[in-house]
Amino acid sequence: MREVAVLGIGQTPVAEQWDKSIRVIAGEAVFAALQDAGRESADGLFIGNMLSGPLNKQENLGALVADWVGLRGAEAVKMEAACGSGGAALRQALIAVASGEMESALAVGVEKMTDTVGPTTTGGLASAADADWEAAQGVSFVAINALIMRRYMHTYGWQKEHFAQFAINAHGNAMHNPNARLHETVTEKQYQRARMIADPINLLDASPIGDGAAAVLLVPTETLKKNGRPRIRIVASASATDSLAVHDRRDPLWLSAAHLSVSKAYAQAGLGPDAIDIFELHDAFSIMAALSLEACGFAERGHGPRLALEEQITPRGQVPIATRGGLKARGHPVGATGVYQIVELVQQLRGEATGTQVPEAKIGMAQNIGGSGATIVTHILRAD
Amino acid sequence: MREVAVLGIGQTPVAEQWDKSIRVIAGEAVFAALQDAGRESADGLFIGNMLSGPLNKQENLGALVADWVGLRGAEAVKMEAACGSGGAALRQALIAVASGEMESALAVGVEKMTDTVGPTTTGGLASAADADWEAAQGVSFVAINALIMRRYMHTYGWQKEHFAQFAINAHGNAMHNPNARLHETVTEKQYQRARMIADPINLLDASPIGDGAAAVLLVPTETLKKNGRPRIRIVASASATDSLAVHDRRDPLWLSAAHLSVSKAYAQAGLGPDAIDIFELHDAFSIMAALSLEACGFAERGHGPRLALEEQITPRGQVPIATRGGLKARGHPVGATGVYQIVELVQQLRGEATGTQVPEAKIGMAQNIGGSGATIVTHILRAD
Repeated sequence: MREVAVLGIGQTPVAEQWDKSIRVIAGEAVFAALQDAGRESADGLFIGNMLSGPLNKQENLGALVADWVGLRGAEAVKMEAACGSGGAALRQALIAVASGEMESALAVGVEKMTDTVGPTTTGGLASAADADWEAAQGVSFVAINALIMRRYMHTYGWQKEHFAQFAINAHGNAMHNPNARLHETVTEKQYQRARMIADPINLLDASPIGDGAAAVLLVPTETLKKNGRPRIRIVASASATDSLAVHDRRDPLWLSAAHLSVSKAYAQAGLGPDAIDIFELHDAFSIMAALSLEACGFAERGHGPRLALEEQITPRGQVPIATRGGLKARGHPVGATGVYQIVELVQQLRGEATGTQVPEAKIGMAQNIGGSGATIVTHILRAD
Repeated sequence: MREVAVLGIGQTPVAEQWDKSIRVIAGEAVFAALQDAGRESADGLFIGNMLSGPLNKQENLGALVADWVGLRGAEAVKMEAACGSGGAALRQALIAVASGEMESALAVGVEKMTDTVGPTTTGGLASAADADWEAAQGVSFVAINALIMRRYMHTYGWQKEHFAQFAINAHGNAMHNPNARLHETVTEKQYQRARMIADPINLLDASPIGDGAAAVLLVPTETLKKNGRPRIRIVASASATDSLAVHDRRDPLWLSAAHLSVSKAYAQAGLGPDAIDIFELHDAFSIMAALSLEACGFAERGHGPRLALEEQITPRGQVPIATRGGLKARGHPVGATGVYQIVELVQQLRGEATGTQVPEAKIGMAQNIGGSGATIVTHILRAD
């Protein structure tokens, strides 16, 4: 298979976009990515989306978006892997181009979660978990993560306040990202006083939903022409799964699919965690950030919060995470998030991450999680 | 890319399976396909499904099914393209194996549409159409097809009774398929007296929903060993799109995505409609069967029903369709249908289609449609 590069990126703000339907939101990101790439079309579209069926009463998103962006006729399909849908769409787009099946492909993540016509968004999000063994018991998605966090604190002896830095870093970084959902700095005191959602997860541990879309245009690296920008090559792509139900796992505090997926990715890229300059991880909840850092080899088991406490997760730290706000403050339009991560990594690797630029960033990793660790997609990008 | 073959097939009956959850239904098809192939695992799973979110409150189906069938850890994802989801899943599984990304892949179509917990199935199916411009006007999916059929009859001068043979053929063939949803022969008189659903579509023009799953195991052709069965190679795969909203098309009576998709497939396989021994088409409604026959070059425009009237669509006719009952009588578990079509084609090409075997069938084509022609996936299989 041939190597693939990211030629163009586009995104919309993550916000409550009540005046725009899902196709309009997706279209804005696609048009921006095409313009950024200097292209007018693509051979195919892979749409990452989780909830358009229940929330927008709209499926068949592939054809819908293809038509809207002027690519009627082009191959198009929707990929669903809960909150990991965006990463999954990117991976299929990548394989389509790498294999030679297409000469260019758009990976588009889109979600419209406010002003919806369906059931509650909380109900929709619960479908990322096991409907028969988790959701049917009345456990919401945040409650599942709360159970994991409580167990983690018990096992490793952390206190609630030790997680504050995840929110503080994410909110601080989002101040420089015009597309972020939240533009408010957060202090340790605010974190401690934040409203409890599902004990021990408070409002500042949880990422906000939103409407938004992000898109990237992929082409074979061999077709890139010099244009004054660094080449952004995708040097690793891997996906793995775990049980949906957390109680079914050997160890609820270990993201085995993240470990499996990142191990493959490191092997493909021929590097390890030390070589990663930026890690856009899936901080849907602060506990997920801690577990991801551990599963990917940045911290020992049970030591994830230490990296945050030592301020190693900031743009000038050892493992910068959530550099444009992350899920926590850029926002988490669930099926779109995985593509936002890639767009933001490309901004960093191009040196265009105004305000939160990681110095001399050359290698970035993005990890997108569907469910509480059930589907995990990892990509490594390299600039040269 | 390397060529890919179908090594194993599996299916469940299409029925009201109230005692089984969606994972159990999917698992039965997967276990059958693995057993048929003489394998115990696969590198990846591609799940075709449309409505698990709204109807079963379950997304993240890739990881769910992978875990249930004993493949926890394996890469897995769900593909959605409305009623074309099964065909889309097959196509992605094919690309994964053809590209060398995987050595084996399962394409699994599954849908659980009865005993559901969500909104009405009719409401769910409407999400295959344009939510803003069709469904929001109160037009159900069957009503959209009724408008197309009415226009077709008006333009080409057909009467209602001229469509009877589509149902008669499908029901007759399903009598020999133990997995079919309906086991009742139909007469012309019964067709004429059938209850009207959305004029001019009556009960015998419309395919029944149901619960069911079908699975195929794909491997590189080069790895096949002689096992006394014919090799079933996938010699063409192509997908194309059209606008979701029918009023947005240049000609509502022409399936341009079917034409685009089948033209690519014919070119890949180096053959034309004359070479096709069996055509498993997407007869969700009898008008769709007529339009598909035309778009794929088996009939002139406006002449689709003539093939049926001349009994050319039966297993001994010139263009056998719905040979195991089709969507009309085998049943239409929407996201699963595209994989059922492939399973049935393989049965035919192996010479195992008891009761409706097409004599000397060597080349078969399957075409799966999402929406009223918006997403169309075509595959051509060849036995030798």
